Amino acid sequence: MDTYNSSINKLTDELSRLPGIGQHTAQRLAFYLISQPRERVQSLSEALINARDNVRYCRECMNLTDSEQCPVCSDGKRDHSIIMVVENPRDLAAYERTGRYRGVYHVLHGTISPMMGTGPSDIRLKELMERISREDIAEVIIATNSSLEGETTAMYISRLVKPAGVRCTRIASGVPVGGDLENIDEVTLLRALEGRKEL
Amino acid sequence: MDTYNSSINKLTDELSRLPGIGQHTAQRLAFYLISQPRERVQSLSEALINARDNVRYCRECMNLTDSEQCPVCSDGKRDHSIIMVVENPRDLAAYERTGRYRGVYHVLHGTISPMMGTGPSDIRLKELMERISREDIAEVIIATNSSLEGETTAMYISRLVKPAGVRCTRIASGVPVGGDLENIDEVTLLRALEGRKEL
Repeated sequence: MDTYNSSINKLTDELSRLPGIGQHTAQRLAFYLISQPRERVQSLSEALINARDNVRYCRECMNLTDSEQCPVCSDGKRDHSIIMVVENPRDLAAYERTGRYRGVYHVLHGTISPMMGTGPSDIRLKELMERISREDIAEVIIATNSSLEGETTAMYISRLVKPAGVRCTRIASGVPVGGDLENIDEVTLLRALEGRKEL
Repeated sequence: MDTYNSSINKLTDELSRLPGIGQHTAQRLAFYLISQPRERVQSLSEALINARDNVRYCRECMNLTDSEQCPVCSDGKRDHSIIMVVENPRDLAAYERTGRYRGVYHVLHGTISPMMGTGPSDIRLKELMERISREDIAEVIIATNSSLEGETTAMYISRLVKPAGVRCTRIASGVPVGGDLENIDEVTLLRALEGRKEL
């Protein structure tokens, strides 16, 4: 489709290669963008390059950061003896949004998944074990997803952490708060039943 | 949320200002982008600036283009005596995708809308009338949307074009091909009834 010209087509092409952005949305975004003030487009364009160039892994927890240490690890008011293990930086962000967790994190950047062919050496597990042996850790909270891969990974990690004499816990899975039972999948319902607590 | 660092936050902010992109999608896209090869991010970044800087209006039809004339207007094999009037370049693109329309276009870049306070002087109507008086036009096909604004605009244009002695037509509105009657709104159903044809 060379209805307009090469530069709109090029932009539409580039945008349509982003995940979840189809040809139609890409075209709509392209038209929106060329109608914006140049400063705004420049600003987005620079933000892209800056983020790509400046982001690296935190040397402690493997979270993404601009500096040596991520904001969580460099925060002296956090409890550095409690490590929450998450699959990726988005999961870390989700727990940070609660504003209640006061420990630190470890980002695995993946899961152990025989199906996808990813093993323990494909995730940032070595770095976690190094932290545990190097620092004085009281508890490791495993907050991988409640999926097959997440559970497999949690199990694997617990078998490494417990022999090191460190308390190892798993976040609860069950019925989400505010969820309507009739809309919740069977596996979650069974998990909630198994995990029931004395009142 | 300064969970990561300023450059990811900046990128997420910029992305979330795009239409239809919420905070969540923006974050997902930002993480995706920083995980991509630098060349790809660079390519998107440059496509943004290039499109913003190079795109202008076609001097004939007001379509968006990189050059003086858009690809449709500069195509000698098109019938330049038939002008299809559309609201915006996306509508032009939609007709071009059919691959069957052989005339040229005129892009209004808006509609006459008393509700939104846009009048005839806010759209590219003067340029259309100049084309009609300057060139030898056989037919003007009004392909504005079948909305209140689109119909108002169509009516207004027909009252200018017809006195100039030029044939003026309107694209049909009715039930979309492949559409299921039970899912189609009442206005469209009534329009299809009114526009019924002898078999």
